[in-house]
Amino acid sequence: MKSGIRIAVIGGGSSYTPELISGLLDVDDLAIEQVTLVDIPEGRDKMEIIRAFCQRLIDHSNKKFILQATCNRHQALADADFVLSQFRVGGLNARARDESIPLKYGVIGQETVGAGGFASALRTIPVALELARELEELNPAAWLINFTNPSGMITEALLRYQGIRTIGLCNVPITIERTIAEALHVSPDVISIDFLGLNHLSFARHVYVQGKDITPLVLEFLKNMSQEAVKNSVANIPKETWAPYLLDAVPMIPNPYLQYYWNTDVMLRKQLADIENGKGTRAIQVMAIEAELFKQYQNPQQVTLPELLMQRGGAYYSTVAVMLMESLALNKRREMVVNVKNDQALDVLPADSVVEVPAVIDGRGARAITMEPVPLEVKGLIQQVKAYEQLTIEAAVEGHRGKALAALLTNPLVPSSEIAHKILDDILRENAAYLPQFAS
Amino acid sequence: MKSGIRIAVIGGGSSYTPELISGLLDVDDLAIEQVTLVDIPEGRDKMEIIRAFCQRLIDHSNKKFILQATCNRHQALADADFVLSQFRVGGLNARARDESIPLKYGVIGQETVGAGGFASALRTIPVALELARELEELNPAAWLINFTNPSGMITEALLRYQGIRTIGLCNVPITIERTIAEALHVSPDVISIDFLGLNHLSFARHVYVQGKDITPLVLEFLKNMSQEAVKNSVANIPKETWAPYLLDAVPMIPNPYLQYYWNTDVMLRKQLADIENGKGTRAIQVMAIEAELFKQYQNPQQVTLPELLMQRGGAYYSTVAVMLMESLALNKRREMVVNVKNDQALDVLPADSVVEVPAVIDGRGARAITMEPVPLEVKGLIQQVKAYEQLTIEAAVEGHRGKALAALLTNPLVPSSEIAHKILDDILRENAAYLPQFAS
Amino acid sequence: MKSGIRIAVIGGGSSYTPELISGLLDVDDLAIEQVTLVDIPEGRDKMEIIRAFCQRLIDHSNKKFILQATCNRHQALADADFVLSQFRVGGLNARARDESIPLKYGVIGQETVGAGGFASALRTIPVALELARELEELNPAAWLINFTNPSGMITEALLRYQGIRTIGLCNVPITIERTIAEALHVSPDVISIDFLGLNHLSFARHVYVQGKDITPLVLEFLKNMSQEAVKNSVANIPKETWAPYLLDAVPMIPNPYLQYYWNTDVMLRKQLADIENGKGTRAIQVMAIEAELFKQYQNPQQVTLPELLMQRGGAYYSTVAVMLMESLALNKRREMVVNVKNDQALDVLPADSVVEVPAVIDGRGARAITMEPVPLEVKGLIQQVKAYEQLTIEAAVEGHRGKALAALLTNPLVPSSEIAHKILDDILRENAAYLPQFAS
Amino acid sequence: MKSGIRIAVIGGGSSYTPELISGLLDVDDLAIEQVTLVDIPEGRDKMEIIRAFCQRLIDHSNKKFILQATCNRHQALADADFVLSQFRVGGLNARARDESIPLKYGVIGQETVGAGGFASALRTIPVALELARELEELNPAAWLINFTNPSGMITEALLRYQGIRTIGLCNVPITIERTIAEALHVSPDVISIDFLGLNHLSFARHVYVQGKDITPLVLEFLKNMSQEAVKNSVANIPKETWAPYLLDAVPMIPNPYLQYYWNTDVMLRKQLADIENGKGTRAIQVMAIEAELFKQYQNPQQVTLPELLMQRGGAYYSTVAVMLMESLALNKRREMVVNVKNDQALDVLPADSVVEVPAVIDGRGARAITMEPVPLEVKGLIQQVKAYEQLTIEAAVEGHRGKALAALLTNPLVPSSEIAHKILDDILRENAAYLPQFAS
Ligand SMILES: [Mn+2]
Ligand SMILES: [Mn+2]
Ligand SMILES: [Mn+2]
Ligand SMILES: [Mn+2]
Repeated sequence: MKSGIRIAVIGGGSSYTPELISGLLDVDDLAIEQVTLVDIPEGRDKMEIIRAFCQRLIDHSNKKFILQATCNRHQALADADFVLSQFRVGGLNARARDESIPLKYGVIGQETVGAGGFASALRTIPVALELARELEELNPAAWLINFTNPSGMITEALLRYQGIRTIGLCNVPITIERTIAEALHVSPDVISIDFLGLNHLSFARHVYVQGKDITPLVLEFLKNMSQEAVKNSVANIPKETWAPYLLDAVPMIPNPYLQYYWNTDVMLRKQLADIENGKGTRAIQVMAIEAELFKQYQNPQQVTLPELLMQRGGAYYSTVAVMLMESLALNKRREMVVNVKNDQALDVLPADSVVEVPAVIDGRGARAITMEPVPLEVKGLIQQVKAYEQLTIEAAVEGHRGKALAALLTNPLVPSSEIAHKILDDILRENAAYLPQFAS
Repeated sequence: MKSGIRIAVIGGGSSYTPELISGLLDVDDLAIEQVTLVDIPEGRDKMEIIRAFCQRLIDHSNKKFILQATCNRHQALADADFVLSQFRVGGLNARARDESIPLKYGVIGQETVGAGGFASALRTIPVALELARELEELNPAAWLINFTNPSGMITEALLRYQGIRTIGLCNVPITIERTIAEALHVSPDVISIDFLGLNHLSFARHVYVQGKDITPLVLEFLKNMSQEAVKNSVANIPKETWAPYLLDAVPMIPNPYLQYYWNTDVMLRKQLADIENGKGTRAIQVMAIEAELFKQYQNPQQVTLPELLMQRGGAYYSTVAVMLMESLALNKRREMVVNVKNDQALDVLPADSVVEVPAVIDGRGARAITMEPVPLEVKGLIQQVKAYEQLTIEAAVEGHRGKALAALLTNPLVPSSEIAHKILDDILRENAAYLPQFAS
Repeated sequence: MKSGIRIAVIGGGSSYTPELISGLLDVDDLAIEQVTLVDIPEGRDKMEIIRAFCQRLIDHSNKKFILQATCNRHQALADADFVLSQFRVGGLNARARDESIPLKYGVIGQETVGAGGFASALRTIPVALELARELEELNPAAWLINFTNPSGMITEALLRYQGIRTIGLCNVPITIERTIAEALHVSPDVISIDFLGLNHLSFARHVYVQGKDITPLVLEFLKNMSQEAVKNSVANIPKETWAPYLLDAVPMIPNPYLQYYWNTDVMLRKQLADIENGKGTRAIQVMAIEAELFKQYQNPQQVTLPELLMQRGGAYYSTVAVMLMESLALNKRREMVVNVKNDQALDVLPADSVVEVPAVIDGRGARAITMEPVPLEVKGLIQQVKAYEQLTIEAAVEGHRGKALAALLTNPLVPSSEIAHKILDDILRENAAYLPQFAS
Repeated sequence: MKSGIRIAVIGGGSSYTPELISGLLDVDDLAIEQVTLVDIPEGRDKMEIIRAFCQRLIDHSNKKFILQATCNRHQALADADFVLSQFRVGGLNARARDESIPLKYGVIGQETVGAGGFASALRTIPVALELARELEELNPAAWLINFTNPSGMITEALLRYQGIRTIGLCNVPITIERTIAEALHVSPDVISIDFLGLNHLSFARHVYVQGKDITPLVLEFLKNMSQEAVKNSVANIPKETWAPYLLDAVPMIPNPYLQYYWNTDVMLRKQLADIENGKGTRAIQVMAIEAELFKQYQNPQQVTLPELLMQRGGAYYSTVAVMLMESLALNKRREMVVNVKNDQALDVLPADSVVEVPAVIDGRGARAITMEPVPLEVKGLIQQVKAYEQLTIEAAVEGHRGKALAALLTNPLVPSSEIAHKILDDILRENAAYLPQFAS
């Protein structure tokens, strides 16, 4: 008989999983009964390493829940209250290709934005939709919590093409919130931030402490931030400060991923330098970190999270997942920044778009909170990237080459139609095994 | 030196005030330092009775705060953290005229809806705007909490024509919520209701308990409700059940004021019968209740709220005011149904409309929560009444006779242009002392 | 071999048909090859009378085209360039019921507005959709020109549920235009009128002569119009002037059907008086006119349109049909007021609504012209009636009793839910033979 | 006494003026009484050359109207029925700077798009607004016909900040229409093209001949168009064909200016090559053409338009101006593609945006025609550029440096914030004489 919450983790063999398990062990109110790691057969060995290490984490803690690992996704989905989706189609090798193909043409190669994120979306959307279809059939009351990147597009595809209950997450908003809380020496609970935009393309318009607007203070702080201080920001992307003239022109706190849009030249030079100096793309670097991480996970003496994990880039990943599950399962009403159906929270995007904004979370799910009109300073970029996202989703679902090219043309990081055409050719060819919808 | 929250009550001589004071005495977290009753010189005597009785309520309780009464509004506004507005321009005599003029022409005469509410809005909006102008000048950080009816229109006028911070309240949504909670024997905290619409024209689309949708159950309950059971509903309007065929056609829980829109004939017959049988309009009945209430208030032995107060019609009035002030002052994040700027929560109304919907309340104020599109079944009525409201506001501000007539023509309770024309003539003539903007 | 335009007239046995044929004989540019009257077998005898009379009209003129009559709709549709739809489901007997049922409950009974128009829509929409389905299958390039009432709702149903090319017509806009042109002694060609609204619920916001705005002049003229002068207005509805205070409040020229909305009491008294004094409803009166008309049509000496036809109410019917067909067939670019997809011409209605507004007509079809925002003075009424129309269409298509009741509740001419419920019962019962979708 | 139309040409000393005068001499229906060239004192000598040559054109023709030239703008505006605005703030020298500043940073330098068009807009908008203010005061019934570039932004600034009657023109839409008409050997009158978008950022979605959609044919033609055939396109921008894969992805006919957005790399290489090989920017080339043109204009034997004028890039300039004036003055109803208030013709842009779409032109002015939703394939780009335009307009009006930078950041041709910052510095410094609003 069921006595608590059951969680299935799709992509359970991920190196992030221990961080998640560790977070679940810190939970106060949520009675977790069972966590089931799920992965594809090719990932079974890695998953077993993760499972064994996570079991040691559990044994070492004073919380208890059942941990298991399986390749039988069907069973795991049927059983779950929450399905955490964090899989990666094609693994780090595919990511490495996503990062390197654009670079060949002098274009930013990145996991979630630009042509790299586009390639990843083409591979991932059909798999995510199939997962959702299965879940809807087996267990329509379950929640699918999506971390799979590109998180905004995946969530929008799920909401538009499937009937399941789903919410998309990213750790950037909470990282910004916690960073500000630490800088101000206040509890995160008294901070409220007006995020607006899309996943990896968002802005904090206002920051409130105890209901008082302190945005000018935060902007002043940002302007004077040293290169040094910025190092605690989101991993996964190079650390950069923001020029004061930029914060004067767009007086909001930009998501660090805005570096790719606004400082495209700087970011590109860094990526090219990393190739030049042998460091390789981020995927290559992550592969090395992961290899070392898995070595540490395999060490039977390792019963706590390794230091190295933080370099992997998942800070607050479990924090936000746990907060969300608590709110949903226990009807704890909370305001969180999530990827959710727009319903006109952003007045300049279609109602059925997915946006990254503050939402009320409780037992009913997530409802976006209305806000002032999107400022003209960022409206054009947000609208353009949403159009790119929607073209990408349609291309991925329909296997439509024309829409795929139109998506790349619309993406602000792709500089011309000829380059877009060449990159698309390379993406379709090198990912052919993962893109049956484009075969003909 | 200020040590706690200071509250000014505009219209402090109202018979409702003791209910409010009683609510303030039940507050747990909010440190109230001082409550100042404010009224016009003509109301000084009544206010003194109220003050003295309220002082006895305070003395009789174990909470303490300073209570004072004044006709110096300027000083009271300058001092307040919260201004509670509950005044009535022209008093119950004006209300009696609002109710009787339409009845002369066979038209519903009611305090807040139809031609009666229209007359009240013409009188009240300029006074409310002047109050807000004064507050904005003296004390722009203060919150104006509006109970003055017609609450939705007043709040919209304040938000469109003044710069103050204001939120409009009504006790109907909380009454529906509490009634359902009692019927289900659950705490109101676990209930979440999707209200949508305008003040005194709203619908509960979905009712959730612990995040689970129980709307069908509630609708079934409503269909089988006896005339008897309905008696605990909102005072101030005759009690009626809803025909099952109506709840089948519009499967939502209607605000009791919908009786005036959907059962206009029944309500009109009741009003005419009350005249016939000498009971008089509701204002006349309320005058009698008030006379008796004031007698009881004057009794030095009376140290608790009189039974009779409940018949006056302000159930949960103080509850909702206190909840709101707590959330604002203490940054307690709460979901409440309030009158708030739409910002596209209702997709079929202008963004700067005021609507009555669930909102997130915290130290920053109220932000409407997005929702599904307004159902076609009630969309036409809501849009029509909002157009009526906006014409009324513009007519009140501009003293524009043409817009006043267009407002009445747009009101669903006014049956023809000739009758509208006659009613408008009567209203302008009989309220001339309160409508300087229409003099010419 | 086809040498010119072929026209099919659905409901060819109508007493209006001779007016149409007469108009086709006046055409200059359009080479008409053939006109086929189509009717149901029950109407064959009446159609034969019409055909024979129309043949005499042709013989008597100096234009020639083939005229034929058939009950084989299939063949006629397959052959046509234009299908003119002017049928009436249930004939004048059904109309008589539409007019009398509401009157039983003290409610306006009218052919196209209120509960009468609602009943007519329920009967007619499924038949119109079936006609369109057949046409789409047989002859998708043909144009369906809809005169069948309620014309706006039928056109919207066709556009939303079928894929054919269709435009809806009414003779009111052209009648207003011609009346103004005559009053000003100018050619209709130099007049441009900003109509806005819905079929039988429209307003002329601005009148231009040679590009110059003369609206104030026209309004002044309307205010001073005698009861006498108004007699040349649209037949089918009682003639009334507009009170000056009304034109001051809503400074636009109202469609005469606005009398039903704004002077409901006056119109109702007239309808009741007609019953009282034995004149009967309009349908009863029309039956008498039609009996006499058919007698005259049968007279072999009658080779011109009888005087009496004008009382029947189809002034400019053929004029507007011919103008439309010319523009479509000959790619003559013209501005006409038609019932057409909104596409945001009216900013306060959904893009897929059908509205009655100025449109560019040419070989491509009709495209609504953008305009200033709908004035607040009429916005509420237009939105409410559009919601009523959409509920009615959905009820008619789905046979959904709840939506049917919600439609009546939303209609401004229906005064209460109980009356709506009773009227709906009567409509469904008395029209059962024509409403299979509601049987169950 | 006035006997005909009076036209004032602001920027009358332009080398384009003879083309305009030549067009006015071809007019059939419009009775032109007088044309007044207006220029600033610094341009008096050039204007006199133009005037003298144009007088020879008139003398040489069989049409007659008075031609005069003046630096008294005040008088000319007060007198005019039509004001044709074609001035250039700072002349070709300023244009040369607009083209060369961005190139310094490896960014497209162009007169109307990208950072060059932005600089031009900053200089031009205040001057255009001052002209409009003067016209509104002196002669509010006159029409301002705007050719001054960037034409869309100037027109939007005029409509948002002034009350005059204005319509913006560009010769690209008519050039596309005429090119297609010639290719098909049909009269332009039977062609109808669904343009959508913004000035220099538009797309022909559908092409109709006699109401029949022939778009696929035109697209096929475009795909097979040789580099040679493309040479008859719009002057002023390098001639390029469109890759078939691009027309498959975005199946519409792109405005030639789209080359800057979609083939940015190719266009940039051409611009850099022109610098390299000593040809210079387009402004430098135009200066040479103009020098030669003025030499020819000064030749007393020159009584017809010189061949060379066509290389200057104003094909159909007078054609479209004359068509527009005829429609406005004679109430000739015509469909033309102009720059006009959106009013929701494009569903994805604000109602008060100026867009380049088909409009009905008659004595009342221009009214945009509604259309299907903007296709997702170009929606993002159109929205982004409109946001850029609005930021630019606000920056120009307010002298707001932050908005100016935000505008450049939003422009798709500006690659990074650092480059935007440097370009803005250069623009503000090198144009300081023309940008008093940015001095501080
Ligand atoms: Mn992320
Ligand atoms: Mn209330
Ligand atoms: Mn009609
Ligand atoms: Mn141009």
